[in-house]
Amino acid sequence: MRRSDRIALISKTLSENPNKVISLSSFSDRLGAAKSSISEDLDIIKKALMASGEGELVTIPGAAGGVRYRTQRSMEAINAFLQGLCETLQDKKRIIPGGYLYMTDVIFSPEFSCIIGEIFSQLFFDKSPTHVLTVETKGIPIALMTARALNVPMVVARRDSRVTEGPSVGISYVSGTGQKIHNMSLAKRALPENARVLIVDDFMKGGGTAQGMRELAAEFKAEVVGTAMVVTTAVPKEKLVEDFTTLLILEGIDTHEGEVHISINGKLLSVLQE
Amino acid sequence: MRRSDRIALISKTLSENPNKVISLSSFSDRLGAAKSSISEDLDIIKKALMASGEGELVTIPGAAGGVRYRTQRSMEAINAFLQGLCETLQDKKRIIPGGYLYMTDVIFSPEFSCIIGEIFSQLFFDKSPTHVLTVETKGIPIALMTARALNVPMVVARRDSRVTEGPSVGISYVSGTGQKIHNMSLAKRALPENARVLIVDDFMKGGGTAQGMRELAAEFKAEVVGTAMVVTTAVPKEKLVEDFTTLLILEGIDTHEGEVHISINGKLLSVLQE
Repeated sequence: MRRSDRIALISKTLSENPNKVISLSSFSDRLGAAKSSISEDLDIIKKALMASGEGELVTIPGAAGGVRYRTQRSMEAINAFLQGLCETLQDKKRIIPGGYLYMTDVIFSPEFSCIIGEIFSQLFFDKSPTHVLTVETKGIPIALMTARALNVPMVVARRDSRVTEGPSVGISYVSGTGQKIHNMSLAKRALPENARVLIVDDFMKGGGTAQGMRELAAEFKAEVVGTAMVVTTAVPKEKLVEDFTTLLILEGIDTHEGEVHISINGKLLSVLQE
Repeated sequence: MRRSDRIALISKTLSENPNKVISLSSFSDRLGAAKSSISEDLDIIKKALMASGEGELVTIPGAAGGVRYRTQRSMEAINAFLQGLCETLQDKKRIIPGGYLYMTDVIFSPEFSCIIGEIFSQLFFDKSPTHVLTVETKGIPIALMTARALNVPMVVARRDSRVTEGPSVGISYVSGTGQKIHNMSLAKRALPENARVLIVDDFMKGGGTAQGMRELAAEFKAEVVGTAMVVTTAVPKEKLVEDFTTLLILEGIDTHEGEVHISINGKLLSVLQE
């Protein structure tokens, strides 16, 4: 097997396993090459990734060492993606009677959810989350893709507890906008104590659901290291949770004019600039 | 940029975009290389993939042409993965009071769901599905990963219709094992007419839910091109749907002895052998 063949296969394996430590020997065994050759191959991939700005290859030294691939996007690339997302969501055909915005196709799309998950992973990587938490249903695809990019398990709270999941812990919470009481529960075995939880959801208005997830995490003695939303409404300005990150802000929907006012969260780009 | 650098980046892009047609010019523009060089790079990747048996690169000729990467696993690799999955699920700690099997961590795992999705995509690729359909909640991660591998949208039926998704079509169905009546609905705009639908779910017992999804698909004038399950119970032998594919068969759970009897679907491997 020539170097170029090995590079093609190693690059493929790394892309398919973001944030997973892969030992040099596993490549060496699989590709029938000396560790020194694999090490040189990895060096080439590392430099190519660096030059392109499309990811990073980190070398972990020591006996349990190897390499780990991290997805990464430049600020420009993230900005361009979010700009495109805004344009997609501004389509007036998305306005649902009652003043809602139809986003289901976007958040359920493998392509969009994958990129959003990678952006969330990039934003919260340094917080070392051990689990991604969401609540059924719409947040699941993005939570899954975030968990994939971080190489950690995804945990999904249910609206009601399920007999097929064994003992569970449940909480009740009031939605941030209405006075309606909702329930949320999670199987006891789904989340270990002292987990570092990244909360992910598609949409936030009052913040009641996010606050519910925080309370649920607290019941499991977990630490919430971040709260990531795709879209957050500008109104109400005061949310039940204070510390959250959103990609887009929905300023409002003008059902009369058929206009959707949605924009990139300005603060997000300054976070990325740091 | 040298050939090895280009191969690293092209291989990465292909792995990240399964089943998507990518034009030679997009590579050529991005990497600053002549189309003839890109064409040679792709040839090297194609041969490396072929030699490894870990995927396939298909060239699409013509003006709208380019290359398309398909994930692929050998029968041996699929068998080994499913064997590992059986061993994971046989752990007696997974037995839930009432005789259920705790599988949530497995089907919500980014790694397992990704591989299962790629296996489903491989099994049904020739049926040219245009959409992957599941019903909330547990089937979503695997449906999403199947949709990703096939590069088609995922569509999720809800247990109740949502005001935020606009007009919807709903059906009622009786679960295959009980006499309980359930509802399932799908936003009208979620699925176009004449779609070719692959139904994906995590678990099947009587087949009522799968049958419900078929009826829902029929309401949208969609053709069901396949039904793919991760685990199907051996009992009842007669299911409400006839034509389905399952990866594993759950023969039974001996709560007294603490034993889970689960095995690879023998018919599956003969399908793959064809």
